Amino acid sequence: MSYHYLLDLALILLSTKILGMVTRKFQMPQVVGALLAGLILGPAMLNILTETTFLSQLSELGVIVILFTAGMGTSLRDLKDAGKSGFLVALCGVLVPLAMGTAFGYFAGKVGWLPGATLLEDVFLGTILTATSVSITVETLKELGRLDTKVGSTILAAALIDDVLGLIALTIVTSLAGEGVNLLMVLVKIVLFFAFTVAVGFAAVRFFRWMIGRASGKNLRRYPVLAFVLCLLMAYCAEEFFGVADIIGAFAAGLVVASTPKAKYIESKFEPVSYLLLTPVFFAGIGIKAELPELNGSLVLFSLLLLAVAILSKLIGCGLGAKLCGFSGRECVQVGTGMACRGEVALIVANRGLAMGVLGQEVMTPVIITVVACAVLTPVLLKLVFRKETVTQLQESGLADRYREVEQLDILSADLLEKNRQMMQDGNKKK
Amino acid sequence: MSYHYLLDLALILLSTKILGMVTRKFQMPQVVGALLAGLILGPAMLNILTETTFLSQLSELGVIVILFTAGMGTSLRDLKDAGKSGFLVALCGVLVPLAMGTAFGYFAGKVGWLPGATLLEDVFLGTILTATSVSITVETLKELGRLDTKVGSTILAAALIDDVLGLIALTIVTSLAGEGVNLLMVLVKIVLFFAFTVAVGFAAVRFFRWMIGRASGKNLRRYPVLAFVLCLLMAYCAEEFFGVADIIGAFAAGLVVASTPKAKYIESKFEPVSYLLLTPVFFAGIGIKAELPELNGSLVLFSLLLLAVAILSKLIGCGLGAKLCGFSGRECVQVGTGMACRGEVALIVANRGLAMGVLGQEVMTPVIITVVACAVLTPVLLKLVFRKETVTQLQESGLADRYREVEQLDILSADLLEKNRQMMQDGNKKK
Repeated sequence: MSYHYLLDLALILLSTKILGMVTRKFQMPQVVGALLAGLILGPAMLNILTETTFLSQLSELGVIVILFTAGMGTSLRDLKDAGKSGFLVALCGVLVPLAMGTAFGYFAGKVGWLPGATLLEDVFLGTILTATSVSITVETLKELGRLDTKVGSTILAAALIDDVLGLIALTIVTSLAGEGVNLLMVLVKIVLFFAFTVAVGFAAVRFFRWMIGRASGKNLRRYPVLAFVLCLLMAYCAEEFFGVADIIGAFAAGLVVASTPKAKYIESKFEPVSYLLLTPVFFAGIGIKAELPELNGSLVLFSLLLLAVAILSKLIGCGLGAKLCGFSGRECVQVGTGMACRGEVALIVANRGLAMGVLGQEVMTPVIITVVACAVLTPVLLKLVFRKETVTQLQESGLADRYREVEQLDILSADLLEKNRQMMQDGNKKK
Repeated sequence: MSYHYLLDLALILLSTKILGMVTRKFQMPQVVGALLAGLILGPAMLNILTETTFLSQLSELGVIVILFTAGMGTSLRDLKDAGKSGFLVALCGVLVPLAMGTAFGYFAGKVGWLPGATLLEDVFLGTILTATSVSITVETLKELGRLDTKVGSTILAAALIDDVLGLIALTIVTSLAGEGVNLLMVLVKIVLFFAFTVAVGFAAVRFFRWMIGRASGKNLRRYPVLAFVLCLLMAYCAEEFFGVADIIGAFAAGLVVASTPKAKYIESKFEPVSYLLLTPVFFAGIGIKAELPELNGSLVLFSLLLLAVAILSKLIGCGLGAKLCGFSGRECVQVGTGMACRGEVALIVANRGLAMGVLGQEVMTPVIITVVACAVLTPVLLKLVFRKETVTQLQESGLADRYREVEQLDILSADLLEKNRQMMQDGNKKK
């Protein structure tokens, strides 16, 4: 019986938390801190941590839970409310990076940076670039007082749809990666999976309503447990019967759970599971996998070009989408810049490609550099494109509030617990 | 990349939840349901689930978190308030089962039920019998309206101390299990570990106070994360430097965290981690390990005798303790019966012995049968010893309330989330 995994876990949790707090101080998301923690503790630098079977299996479960949570955070109502401009910005903002990323992959293969790259690997590189990470933009726009503007709410709406489109792209690409598959079969299976999700959704909502109707309202644990069972089963079925990636199944399960009553309650219970164990292990694990010692001139150039393609393709794509909706030139640039940042999903897609053997290890370091550099650049670029502008048009948006809702309840409950504790202490003293 | 673990986890969660709900209906704790789920799905019956490396590593982490949570639930203030009667009942209720269990182990070795059993294995069998599980008793006494009596509060207090004493016994026994150890060194190391825990405790309380003082009160996640780091590090240090079982380190870390501010908040965050993943995996895992097919006549006899020893030893031990405190004969029997049930800790100790190679596989099935049978018998026996008695003496006890506190907050927060959701829906409709 080995107990060394205890130290590994403690190191991962401590380092990701400390570096996460540091990056947060610099207005970067905590995921950047977790990546850096993995890089620093892993073979790339200090070599204290190496990937064990347990850690890699835990991080596989971690990415399932991350996408399940992401799905629960994606309310179908919000998607519908996002409107035409949100949809167009998201669509162009996915197609252009996909195309430019694929073209860049082809170019990188020719130059020799991606030895033996197939078309599939090129498309995978494009897929990595599709999904926006909007958290930094939200924080920066809040600080600039521009979140409740037309541009701000368009970015929020587009980012929501963008995630879903990016995952659809991943679904198609991963399905194509199997051996001896043909495009028609893949599309049929994806359509069937979609129908399956809708059917499960209807059944799940009915089942939850039925359960809530006959329950006493006291035994609440069953809802998160059943939601998790649904997530695991849908992830399993996606792989087993539809040839779709398990993480897509988990995301679909999250969408289903989001439509049931108790959705917010279930989400709040998955938060600690995620941040106390699975998320740090997953993102630190990606940092651990990176191989910085091999950072030579050509890898640096590859990384910088990938970063440029990442930012430019979103700027062009989302800007184009905004233009089609009648935004002014300045607003188009603002929307494009706000959508340029990459984050969790890019890493998840890259990690998936690596695990499937479609992507080579040599892609991981440039992708990590792109994600970190995007996080550093986004606030700077946003302040640049928003400078010397007076706020012209404030819009009410319910989307921004969602980001705070669960957090506020958490603070409230912490207060209640603290008051309760003090009351009991006072009571004991009186005795 | 294999995705079969998804199905395994889904099956474990679903079956433990369903059987847990069934056993709860019959006033048995959910852990019995989880055990049965493992027995039914495992090689003992349906053979759908087998133990994988991932599952067994997850359940190792699970038992760490279970004991960490148990430690957080054991407030030092409550221990102090338990008073002389609680302490005496607990002490006699640990020593007598330890002695009788050891004697029974010796006897079982002679008869041939425990082939090649050493003195250490005998003592280990005694240690399994030390720790009471009080949850069924609490539920039954509540139903009988006897929880707030002198007998009820003595049982609650004794059960608290009983856990700690049982873990001290485990500490000593596991420390002795190493090769070439001598008793003096073991005791010195245990004393050092105790001093280490006290020192860490003071440092941790100061550190948490300092953090809370300078934090904005908004970033609450750091507290559970740091508490978990403390748990993992203390579990690791216990094994690495003191030769003490890692689960004891985790329990000590729980005691330390319980003395910090934010203790209740931290505890509430570990709840979902525990019931959504780690606890079901651990207890179902024990059921999976059991080998029912080998259930022959002598194994059944062994199990029944172990059950008898388990119940009688607590009845004698705790009854003796109550007698020493001047309880009436009838009250002594009531206290002894209330303390007779075994549960989680017995399984954890047995599992530990198995993992260390001190206990043989043949002990597991009798232990599981004892735990399940105790859970079935306790309410029956309690109703028997309390029948035809009028409530004479009501006492106020803060202990009973602790069991409900976190649960109530959870129901409150679920209500708030639900109201918030409805408000947002109404708001959307108005638009």
